Parts: sequence; structure tokens; C-alpha cells
Amino acid sequence: MNNPGSNQRTTHAAVIGAGGYVGGQLLRLLAGHPAITRVTAVSTSRAKQAVADTHPQLTKILAQDFAADADANGKPDVVFFATPPQVAMHQAARWLDQDCIVVDCSPDFRLRDLDLWERWYGVRHANPELVAEAVYALVEFNRNALAGARLIAVPGCYATAVQLACVPIVKALGAQNASDLTVIADCVSGTSGAGRRNDRPELLMAEAGNNFQAYALTGHRHTPEILQGLANYCGVEPVLRFVPHLLPVPAGMFATVHFVATGKQLDAADILRKTYADEPFIDLLKPDVSPQLSSVVGTNYCQIGCASDPLVVMCALDNLIKGAAGQAIHALNVACGWLETDGLI
Amino acid sequence: MNNPGSNQRTTHAAVIGAGGYVGGQLLRLLAGHPAITRVTAVSTSRAKQAVADTHPQLTKILAQDFAADADANGKPDVVFFATPPQVAMHQAARWLDQDCIVVDCSPDFRLRDLDLWERWYGVRHANPELVAEAVYALVEFNRNALAGARLIAVPGCYATAVQLACVPIVKALGAQNASDLTVIADCVSGTSGAGRRNDRPELLMAEAGNNFQAYALTGHRHTPEILQGLANYCGVEPVLRFVPHLLPVPAGMFATVHFVATGKQLDAADILRKTYADEPFIDLLKPDVSPQLSSVVGTNYCQIGCASDPLVVMCALDNLIKGAAGQAIHALNVACGWLETDGLI
Amino acid sequence: MNNPGSNQRTTHAAVIGAGGYVGGQLLRLLAGHPAITRVTAVSTSRAKQAVADTHPQLTKILAQDFAADADANGKPDVVFFATPPQVAMHQAARWLDQDCIVVDCSPDFRLRDLDLWERWYGVRHANPELVAEAVYALVEFNRNALAGARLIAVPGCYATAVQLACVPIVKALGAQNASDLTVIADCVSGTSGAGRRNDRPELLMAEAGNNFQAYALTGHRHTPEILQGLANYCGVEPVLRFVPHLLPVPAGMFATVHFVATGKQLDAADILRKTYADEPFIDLLKPDVSPQLSSVVGTNYCQIGCASDPLVVMCALDNLIKGAAGQAIHALNVACGWLETDGLI
Amino acid sequence: MNNPGSNQRTTHAAVIGAGGYVGGQLLRLLAGHPAITRVTAVSTSRAKQAVADTHPQLTKILAQDFAADADANGKPDVVFFATPPQVAMHQAARWLDQDCIVVDCSPDFRLRDLDLWERWYGVRHANPELVAEAVYALVEFNRNALAGARLIAVPGCYATAVQLACVPIVKALGAQNASDLTVIADCVSGTSGAGRRNDRPELLMAEAGNNFQAYALTGHRHTPEILQGLANYCGVEPVLRFVPHLLPVPAGMFATVHFVATGKQLDAADILRKTYADEPFIDLLKPDVSPQLSSVVGTNYCQIGCASDPLVVMCALDNLIKGAAGQAIHALNVACGWLETDGLI
Repeated sequence: MNNPGSNQRTTHAAVIGAGGYVGGQLLRLLAGHPAITRVTAVSTSRAKQAVADTHPQLTKILAQDFAADADANGKPDVVFFATPPQVAMHQAARWLDQDCIVVDCSPDFRLRDLDLWERWYGVRHANPELVAEAVYALVEFNRNALAGARLIAVPGCYATAVQLACVPIVKALGAQNASDLTVIADCVSGTSGAGRRNDRPELLMAEAGNNFQAYALTGHRHTPEILQGLANYCGVEPVLRFVPHLLPVPAGMFATVHFVATGKQLDAADILRKTYADEPFIDLLKPDVSPQLSSVVGTNYCQIGCASDPLVVMCALDNLIKGAAGQAIHALNVACGWLETDGLI
Repeated sequence: MNNPGSNQRTTHAAVIGAGGYVGGQLLRLLAGHPAITRVTAVSTSRAKQAVADTHPQLTKILAQDFAADADANGKPDVVFFATPPQVAMHQAARWLDQDCIVVDCSPDFRLRDLDLWERWYGVRHANPELVAEAVYALVEFNRNALAGARLIAVPGCYATAVQLACVPIVKALGAQNASDLTVIADCVSGTSGAGRRNDRPELLMAEAGNNFQAYALTGHRHTPEILQGLANYCGVEPVLRFVPHLLPVPAGMFATVHFVATGKQLDAADILRKTYADEPFIDLLKPDVSPQLSSVVGTNYCQIGCASDPLVVMCALDNLIKGAAGQAIHALNVACGWLETDGLI
Repeated sequence: MNNPGSNQRTTHAAVIGAGGYVGGQLLRLLAGHPAITRVTAVSTSRAKQAVADTHPQLTKILAQDFAADADANGKPDVVFFATPPQVAMHQAARWLDQDCIVVDCSPDFRLRDLDLWERWYGVRHANPELVAEAVYALVEFNRNALAGARLIAVPGCYATAVQLACVPIVKALGAQNASDLTVIADCVSGTSGAGRRNDRPELLMAEAGNNFQAYALTGHRHTPEILQGLANYCGVEPVLRFVPHLLPVPAGMFATVHFVATGKQLDAADILRKTYADEPFIDLLKPDVSPQLSSVVGTNYCQIGCASDPLVVMCALDNLIKGAAGQAIHALNVACGWLETDGLI
Repeated sequence: MNNPGSNQRTTHAAVIGAGGYVGGQLLRLLAGHPAITRVTAVSTSRAKQAVADTHPQLTKILAQDFAADADANGKPDVVFFATPPQVAMHQAARWLDQDCIVVDCSPDFRLRDLDLWERWYGVRHANPELVAEAVYALVEFNRNALAGARLIAVPGCYATAVQLACVPIVKALGAQNASDLTVIADCVSGTSGAGRRNDRPELLMAEAGNNFQAYALTGHRHTPEILQGLANYCGVEPVLRFVPHLLPVPAGMFATVHFVATGKQLDAADILRKTYADEPFIDLLKPDVSPQLSSVVGTNYCQIGCASDPLVVMCALDNLIKGAAGQAIHALNVACGWLETDGLI
């Protein structure tokens, strides 16, 4: 594995919020990335503790202590935020001002519509002007805008799965001038999607094990993000019914997407093939074959399959990788002009 | 626990196909049923082996060997079929002729429309005249017909979950003369639903563990059964899109049901409350609270919940109990005039 | 199921700490117990919340709110403590003084040796005089002492599994005057054994799922409890090496016990048969057949199996039932002279 | 990642038995191995089917059909056997005669003592003279013999875990001239260790899920292999009590090893550190820290930890990788003089 596109000798990446699950995946992937020469794991609450105490799977891979700040080992070239909401919006400017690339895995820069963001997140945005600059990192549909980007907003995991499943179809249905298009997305996620949080007993193995339940029945924050993507990439804004469910596994995400429309029948398999044939991380299956979590968990691949009668499109991916850390690095590779698969295959 | 309704001194129940998962649940429940005084576990392939060798959880509960035939210990009063498709249709008449009640947990007598049945099951039905006599055992909606029934057709597991979730709503929507009603049912099931079969490696822990996938993408046999129920109990036949998925757990089933209709908004919570308030096995949750597998697995309870904007109704049950063996005994209790909860609580 | 032994018309049981996992099992079992006519669920932190909000599986079974105190619905006859360590030792006397039976599922009254208790639990015991009165509820070996007991100390889950596996064997080896007996107990437990606690991320599904690890490598509090039992019931105190492991399931416990001794070979199967033949909750398997978690989880049964060359004894039980709530009720049944299986089968 | 040691331009690897779980891992790892330029997946029963139909996780990685023979794409340089017992012993000579390196992941060449092998496997060995030539691939303890090896016998998964945990300690205890050393190894394995077999219902998710049981209670074939290793690498043959258990996960293995000896106390942590400090795939943990499955599953790493009072050594690895396919490639790397980590990190 080499790094043909790198135009600098060394690249130092810092990961803020490196003690969480997305942070751990970023550390693992960056440690093996051919263009990244230094990695700094940042966690204020874990500063000076060994990274391996929190992430025992990294013992042989990243022998260092957490740093208290991203420049503890010198100024970084890239700063990843793997933080809860409302951290990056306060800190991003500091690193952009130092000519760092900022890759935000949190939701702070995902929605262009500030009012919408503030309604869903319940606070004032700390840095509205940066929102306009942020590039949304759904690489398959926003590759050109990502080239040279300074501030990258990594999509949410559900938003990634649902958009990858339905953007090509909604675009085709929209072109038919379909009226009353309803998109129904029933999704399931492994519990790591909620992060390493201790305030929800339903995430304990004792309660999540063997269990299955829907949640966020009064609305989930990824809904406006999906609708924004459908407007941007398809030119239509259908009715969306999105129900997330908790799957009794640590990692993995699956979206089953239905389309209720009055337009004529589509050849979904053909549309998907034309859209995704050359995508390095989309594994398009034969018609009537379902994606499987076990094919993609632990990788940056996304499996997509469809059935045509009735039309259903399904998407499987790893919520922490293709749905977060892997997609973030994919976007960075595009932003830097590196090989798209660097550090990911 | 007593048995107020029994009008005979002893009741002998035989379970044909007792070596499978539904058979094991029937044995367990019947062994504790106050009106059942003798249980015969029948398995031709396991005859003379100890029941506990196949069902180690029954060691202390049912110390007997499998019998080769249902009358090995004397003529039974009730014969349960927990067999694969196309066994009961050949054997039911033999026991009905001897005045036994027959409770068929297989699909042989579920569909009234013989042509439809033969199309979905791919064979000629062996006993068409009995099909007309069979009473469909969705107890909550067919209680009156079950009283005194001789031949009971226990619904399929998915058909149970989906009908319990949507019959009240579809009925209400139908009353509005809704046009173009589409019902979308995304369902998940633990792998015991496929039975103790050895021809599908995707049922192995090594492949089903941590996995999740859709299946039967070209059509599932419970689809016509659900549509038959909606026609019978609601008077309408909507478009149904039903996608089953394999959940990485041994047991449990969850249905998430959406309704796309042009009629006016319904008060789903109120409709469900009016339908299910007095049902002994329906646990109706407060609005916007999701059912959970862990609340119902191992029991004959079914949890039902709903969200209203957009409308979604969810149902959780144990596929082997409320979706098979428990529902079978519930129906028998009704047929015999016993207490409905006998042997089940 | 009837209640031949009850000598009072009504029995009111209160469960303190009813919001936890053991508490939830106690509520479920007591609600179905033929001799218990009233159940009060006590949780100071959840007072006035519906029990079903915390234990959704109890919606149809126990429709009440948590009470702030055990006498909120009148003086109880029995008070269960399903609390963390160091609650019961402060509160037990209050209820004993009112002639209640106290059944403590916490470790406060398990060890007779106060110094030992204080060393392992790191605090002064609040009520040393009651320690002497408490009866240790390993029913199979302490039945006589339990009859009429007022203060019952329910064994720890590991202590239950290991003692049931090894007491008969150690007793037989002790009778041979074996020198240098070493008992090695490798045990696994589902994560509910740690309780509904939020301070250990390794109990999250995201970390416990698919995982397996040993813990308490510098010593576990059930070690002195097991040694006390071996001294009491076998008259010897062997070297004990006990290593607990976290199993990636919500519930269940399995002990694999080895014996390294210089005495002559024993017929373990025969010894176990003679010990346990008439025990209502011990399911003794044929030689060389392993117990299985799935045979016992959700029940009060304990499966015990052995292999003879080399000698190994294995025990499987449900850590929350036979290892806690079920054993507590079994002991209460003995204490009250009720049928031993009341409320448990 | 480069390949400094390769002394040939192209290397063609064929995997016989590529349709199984170990075969799938070999294909995945070989496809990314810098010194392997061609991979042929061989499966007689799946010939002409797409590899991705059996291994959907390989769709983007190995787009080929199964071949009926290992030379379907030209003579291979290396032939892996990922076959059931008693295939390689018949076919290995054919490929050795053509100057291929043969790497056997099956048990056919693991035991030097032919009589012992024939007793445990119940058949005559088809090629006794090759047994003497085979080099046992426990790389950490047999590196020198592997250099230049032509026929490589990959250790069993349990034999790998137990030997890595106990060889250093038994060697040290042996040096003390310890009498009566008993080694007790309680091990757990994910169910993929049994292969993709359909004759054991206990491997179904419906039965293995949430379950835990011991097996092979009358003896496991890895026992003589472990004893052979202890004799070879430690010069002593202790009493070994090895009990395998089925863990409810697809992949992963954990060994908990106890030592009952009369010699003086050892500094196990120090002994392990001296043995493994420079090993690329051994992740040695601090004292009293347990290895974890989740740290090693999906990788070729092996975590080893210990506690000293009483002495226990624990080892975690992925049974299909470090316990099979990864160890096989590690051994090939040594045999060919390639970088040891090639294709594995």
C-alpha cells in the first residue's frame, strides 16, 4: 500500500475525543494509514493514561498516552472531532485558523439550515459562519466539493445508510415528477452507535442482549439530515418515515427502505448499478440478495441490495466505520488528493 | 391455578413433531396445564429416546420417552401438530374421526382459498374438505368461531404479529373508505422460527451471530395469510409490503408497521385501547413507547405500542409461544371452554 | 398450584431495592406465588413511578407504583432486600423487630466470621449481633436450620453454583483424609450479575457483546463464602482457586470445577446421585453430559453434570433466579413450612 | 507494506477447502498479502460457483469462481489445506512432489507419534513418512525449524491457545524439577471452531445463542497435541486437564490455565515478558489484567495476561486467525523468509 497523491512529507493527525468508540476506530485506521506519519490521541478526561487502557485492542498498534490537547506533540495537520454534539462548533475555528484540516464526526456542521439545526439540537450554534463553509462528506455524492475542503462534516450513521440506499432511487422517481412520494426507512443499529455512555441502562448487555426495540419515536435528529440530502442530491423532498431500532449487537447498521409512489415502475437494480459501479466501498449485490451485517462489520464497505416487486432497497454497513471513522478518512483522502482507499483496505 | 371450565375428568394431549422447537414449547406448557392430565410426546424419528435428550430443559418436567404414535399411551383427546408443512393435511382426519380435537401449528389449514394455498405451497392439498372446517386461531379476532372448534389452524408467527399490529388500524382506515392504503411491515425474527433444520448454514451461530439480513425477498408464505386476515377482519385488502429479517437471537419477533393512506388522521392509541383493553395476553403500551423483545420472550404476552406522527404500530412477541405453541393452547382453551389463561400464566 | 402449608390467611411481601434485576425477578415470582397475597415494590429512587416503567415485562403482572417504604401498603410479613451491600445491615433490625421475616439477597449476612466480612467488604458491620442469627440459605445443605428462620442470608450466585458443584465431592474427599486438596473453579456469568450499574463500561452491550474476559483477578468476595461453606458442610477447607469470567449474555452462570487430590478415585456420579436424587430443583445429568445455560435460564432449576476421568463437576443455573431471587423464595418456603416449589414451578 | 524477503517474482497460493470458515479467512488474508500475486480458491463441491456466494464479505476482494483443482490457474507455489481431517494426508504428496510448499491447517500432520495419531483419529495414517518431515507451526516456539520448511502442520486452535499460555510457565516449573505438576486448562471457543457443519443442532443460533456448555468430556483431540508440545518445548509432560466449552459467539477463543505444583512460586509476569517481549503477535498485558476476546477477534494478535496469587495465565485469540489461517500465513512467512507480519497487520 503506498501513497501516490501525498504532496507533503509528513502528516500529523490528532483525534479529539479519542476515548470513545469512533475515536478508537479513527486511531486504529490512522495508525495504519500510509500518508499519516503521526497520530495524537486527545482526551482531556483521560490525559496521561495509556491509550491501551481504554482501547485494549490498540496495545500493539498505538503505544502512547492520551494527550490533553491536539498540539501536545506539535501542531497537527488534520484535526478529527470524535466528540459529542456542541464541542466542535466551539473549537473548530481554532484549528482552521492554524491551517489545519478539520474533520468533524459530530453533528455540529451537518445541517446547512441553521434554524433547523438549532431546533433539532436545542441550542444556539456557536459558529454559524463556519456552517456555510463545511462540506458534507457523503463521498459518493459530494466528491467534487470535498476536493480541497478545509472543514468536513461527516454524515450521521443512519443518514449515511439511508441516503446510500435511497438517493439513486428518489432521484429517478423525482425525474418522473412523482407525486406523493413516501420513503419509509426502518433501520437497525448496534448499540455502539449511542457511544460509551453510562446514562441509559437499555444499552447494558443485561438489557440490550436478546432485545430489540424501536426508539426516538417522536423524531430522530438524522431525519432532517436525510431530507437535506434528498433535496440536495435528488431535487425533491419526499415524505420520510424513519424508525430506528436497537439491534442486540455491538456494531453494524442495516436500512430497509421502501418507496410508495405513483410514478411508473423503476429498474432499481439498473439504477443502482449505474450509480455505484465504480465506487470503491459500495458492494452492490445481485437482485433479491440481501446485504448482511457480517459481510461489512469491521470494514469500510457498504453492501447494497434490492428487490423489485415490491421495490425495496437495503443497505448494510458498520456504523462506526463506513458510518463514521472510515467515511471520515475516505473524505480526508479525497480532500487531500490521496488514493481514496488509503488506510481503509 | 385451577380449571373451572373443564367438563371432563381427564384430558390427554399428544404432540406430533415433539422433537422440534414448537413441539418442545408445547410439551413444556402442556405439562403445566391444569386441565391436561396426560401428555404424549410423539416423534417417529426419535421414538424410544428420552425426551430430555432432545429437550434438556424438560428433564425435571416430562420424564418420558418419545412415542412412535399419538395413541401409544391410549387414545388422545387433543392432538397437536408441530410438524413441517404437509404432514397434518394427511393425518388430521384420522384423529378427527376418533373425536379428537386437532390443533395444527403447521400452515396446512391456514388459508381458506385452496388455489392460493396450492400456489404458495407448491403441492396439491391432501384434504380440501377439512380446509373449510378449520378455524383460524387468531384468538383476539376469532374467539367466537373457536368455541367448540374441532380443527384449529394456528396462525403463522409473522402473520400473528402483523395482524395484531394492524387489524384494528386497517379496520378503522377501511371504514373511512381509504383509497390506496399501503401497509408496510418490516419484521424481524429470532432464528428458531426456521425450526431445527440443518440445511441452511445461515442459521448457524457462526453465521447468524452478529448478523442481520432480510430474506424471502421474492415473497413469503405469510403474506397471503395476512391479506386473508385483513379481508376477513377489516373488510379491505390493502397493498401489503412485508419484509422479514433474521435477528441474531434464538427467539423473539418484532413487527414495525406503517400505513400510507389518504384518509384522515386516526387516533391509533385510542383504537388500540378499545380493541385490546380486555385481552389477557395483549400488553398495550403508552403512546411513543416501544415494545421490547425482552419483555415478552418466554411468555405468551404480546406487547403493542404506537407512535402517531407519523403513525407506526409495533408488536413484540415470542415467535415460539404467542406466535405458535402458546397461541395454540390459548385457542384450545377457548375451544374447550376452559379459562383462557390456563397453562399460560 | 395450591399452598398446603400456609398457616396464615394472607401474606404481604415487600421487596426493598425492587428497581434492580434481582428485585424484578422477586416481583415476578412473588406475584405468582400461591401463598403471597400482596406484593409491595419498594424503591426510594423510583417512588411513585410505575413499576412497569422500570420492568416493562411486569405490565400485565404487577400494576402498581414503587412505594417509598416497605410499609406503605401496611406492615409486611416478609421483607426482601435486593439492595447493594451495606443497606440490609442497617435496616434489617427494624423489620425483625416488627416480627417480619427478613430475606437478604445482599452479602451483608453471609459470612459468620465478622473479621473476614469486614476485611472483604472494607467497612465495619453495622449489626454484628444479627450476623450470628442469620441462616445461610443454601437450601440443599441447610434445610433444617432454615425451618422457622427469621433472618435469611441468600448465598451469592457464584457461591451457590460452586458449592452445589463441589460440596458433595469435597465431603467425600475429606472423608478419605485427602491431603493437599485443591479445588479449581472456573466460572462464567451473564452480565446481569453486576446489577443495573452505570459505572462500568465493560457491561455495555457495545463492549460486553462478543467479548469474554476474566475479572476480579486479585480476589472475589465469593471466595470466603465458598470456603465457609466447604468448612461447614464438608469439614475441610481446601485450597480454592476461583476465577470468574464475564459471559456475553444477559443471564446465566456456569461453573466448571476440578479437584486435584491425592486420595483415591471417587465415583462422582454416584455421590452426586445420592446427594441430589430428591432435590426438587437439582437436575442431575447422566455422566459425561454437560449442563447447559439454555436449559436453566429463566427457571429455578440447577443442572449438574460430571465427567470422571479426569473428575470435573459442572453446574449451570440462572444467576438471578437459582442464584438469587428463586433461591430466596425457596428458602422462604422452607422457613414458612410451605411447599418447597411454591411460586417456583 | 512491502515484501523485502521475497526471492521470487510471483507467488501463486491455492486454498483447498476454501468454502469453509478457515478457507474464507485464508482467502481474505492472502488477497491482501504483499508477496502473494495470485490466489486460487479450490472447492470441489462448489466448483464454478462465485466465491462471493459462499463468502459474501469477499465480493470486493476476490472476484473469482471456485476452481475444482489447485492447479486450475497454473501450478501453485503454495497449497493450503483448509479441509476436514484425512484429506491432506492423501493429497499432500502430490503437491510436495511438484515443489509446492504445503501448509496443512487440518490435524493430519500435527502428531509425531503415529500410534497416538491413529488412536485419536481412528484411522490408519495414509502417509506416515511425511509425518516425520512436517514442521509444527507454533511459530513462537518453533521458528528455526520453520525456516525453509516444505510441509507445515498448523496447530489446532485450542492447542495454540493453551501452549502459548503455558509453555513458558511449564518450562520454568520443569526446570525446578517440580513433581506432580497438574495443568488445568478451561477453554472457551466461538462456534465457528466446529466448521460449517450441519450435523450438530447445538451449533445453530437457536440452540447456541445464550447458551454455554462444556463438551468432549471424554477427551478432546487437542489434548495429545498440547502434551506433545509441552514435552518438546518444556521437556516435561505434566498431567493435563483440558475442558473445552462452547461460547455463544461466532469467533474467539479464551484459555484460563492453572498450575498445581509443589515447586516454589514463580514470577510468571517476568517469565512471560522474557519469552514474548519481541513477538510481533503476542500482546502481553500488565499483571492482573485479563485478555479480552474483543481485543483480538478479527486479528492475528494473541493477548496473554496473568495473575500471580494464585498463578493463572490467560490467553485470548481469534480461533480462525491466530488459531488457524493467520498462524498458517505467519508460518509461511517464516518458511519463505518474508517479513513475519506480511499480510497479517
